[in-house]
Amino acid sequence: MQPPSTGGDGTVAGLGERALVAAVTARYPQGEGVLVGPGDDAAVVAAPDARVVVTTDVLVEGVHFRRDWSPAHDVGRKAAAQSLADVAAMGAVTTSLVVGLAAPADLPASWALELADGLREESALVGASVVGGDVVSSPVLTVAVTALGDLQGRAPLTRTGARPGDVVAVAGRLGWSAAGLAVLRRGFRSPRALVQAHRCPEPPYAAGPLAAALGATSLVDVSDGLVLDLGHVARGSGVDLLLRRDALEVPGPVRDAAAALGADPYAWLLAGGEDHALAGTFPAGAELGAAWTVLGEAAAAGEGGPRVLVDGAPWEGEAGYDHFG
Amino acid sequence: MQPPSTGGDGTVAGLGERALVAAVTARYPQGEGVLVGPGDDAAVVAAPDARVVVTTDVLVEGVHFRRDWSPAHDVGRKAAAQSLADVAAMGAVTTSLVVGLAAPADLPASWALELADGLREESALVGASVVGGDVVSSPVLTVAVTALGDLQGRAPLTRTGARPGDVVAVAGRLGWSAAGLAVLRRGFRSPRALVQAHRCPEPPYAAGPLAAALGATSLVDVSDGLVLDLGHVARGSGVDLLLRRDALEVPGPVRDAAAALGADPYAWLLAGGEDHALAGTFPAGAELGAAWTVLGEAAAAGEGGPRVLVDGAPWEGEAGYDHFG
Repeated sequence: MQPPSTGGDGTVAGLGERALVAAVTARYPQGEGVLVGPGDDAAVVAAPDARVVVTTDVLVEGVHFRRDWSPAHDVGRKAAAQSLADVAAMGAVTTSLVVGLAAPADLPASWALELADGLREESALVGASVVGGDVVSSPVLTVAVTALGDLQGRAPLTRTGARPGDVVAVAGRLGWSAAGLAVLRRGFRSPRALVQAHRCPEPPYAAGPLAAALGATSLVDVSDGLVLDLGHVARGSGVDLLLRRDALEVPGPVRDAAAALGADPYAWLLAGGEDHALAGTFPAGAELGAAWTVLGEAAAAGEGGPRVLVDGAPWEGEAGYDHFG
Repeated sequence: MQPPSTGGDGTVAGLGERALVAAVTARYPQGEGVLVGPGDDAAVVAAPDARVVVTTDVLVEGVHFRRDWSPAHDVGRKAAAQSLADVAAMGAVTTSLVVGLAAPADLPASWALELADGLREESALVGASVVGGDVVSSPVLTVAVTALGDLQGRAPLTRTGARPGDVVAVAGRLGWSAAGLAVLRRGFRSPRALVQAHRCPEPPYAAGPLAAALGATSLVDVSDGLVLDLGHVARGSGVDLLLRRDALEVPGPVRDAAAALGADPYAWLLAGGEDHALAGTFPAGAELGAAWTVLGEAAAAGEGGPRVLVDGAPWEGEAGYDHFG
């Protein structure tokens, strides 16, 4: 990667819109499914099975990330991860992304380029290309990512297919990002594994298509908290989802941080978002393999349902994040 | 359309994120090409010819629109129009959009709902559905639109195919939006036709697929100014594009406003953006019909080229809008 030529004062304004777009675009190699890449009015991407999965996410400085907590590279990885995980939660594989960047004039050009590096690297984990975008000026640094995905011939995994008797299972991390955020909020920068988990999640992308292959009846991305996001499945499917708290293994670093901060680690596992685990339901008896941990089962909705119950009771902890909430 | 229940104080914060998403989603009917609509991790849309066109645009309050100049409905129409025009400029038809809304907590909920109405109505002009989105809080009102399009079996129209001898032609309006902006900047609200053209462009969507059917060799959306955007075609194709100023008919309202404000109407026609006309090149002798106005022809790049020349000279006026410029 060439170091950028960043014009006079090193800001995006010093570089100028066109040079910035050119420098960002140069950081995005194009995969073979990209028929028209960046630089035209729109991109054209292969959609091999004549369907396309699409999801969009907006990240705002001070709301979703802080420049003093996360380097641009990690913001880029996290921004991509959020959309890639949504595509995976449909049982699909992301093929391409477009990225809108709204940036203050005094944003260092290096920040925008490192953001692009993070977007590229996270996308490359699933073989996806950044195929286009938009760069505009704004008083508030904002990143808008849209991901397109390929179902590879499979039916999409929605939130509406869970049936009584199905098992509930999760793939990926729970509680790491929430623990990292709690650490950062106290002014600490370690334990590094937790802080890094908050800055840059590691969603189990392959588990989405794998879930479809295993016959999953529903699947959801855990972006707002396990109980909250499984609540969408419960209501969408008209079932109760009965979780057993002791089925959740508390990771060592999360347990240690909870002890040090006087927090309940299960609150982080059950209500923390942003690790982008995948959670869903499978037919009873399905051989799920090592990627999945069974947490409970689906049942006919009881009084007060459809809903998620933990050890038979509604989860009383913080339920997850609500903008404007 | 039911009037919204907007919670306590009528703001998006009073309504809450989930109720806002539900109220917005209720305003988006889903077309038959939508296989999974709003409310899941991602939408799934038909891509009948196994390719998908994708483009994204970000609009920021104070940069791209002003709430005191444009009602929410017009901001929605304009936000959709910008992306629909990009898709048309590839020779494609938009099938679906996803919309990210970053909103201050005190934004009136009615504003968000009227924005959705505008997005829906403009999308409906081409038969497209809003299939998903994201709603987050932000200090600065920001709208991010991504549109997906269908090429209907045609090759995409890019910026690289113009050949010496081709004719240059334009479909749609030029100068109206720039004239309307000049009027608004002087503090006026009329002539209404110009002000409305700035608030809510009327791109010639059908002219994009039509251009492909007519054998166009290149096509571009005029978002930043005719000379500037045709400059992309000139450089992309390695040709000079020779325009004749007297081929441009100055619309009556534009001429009158220019006279009243002491402005050069050709500056608005040649350098004004945001009307989202479509401009491109066609084989010499093509029967273009009433939608297209021939402005000149392409020639082998001369000294100083490839570039756009107006009456044989570089256009000396304002060249168009550059963020951070």
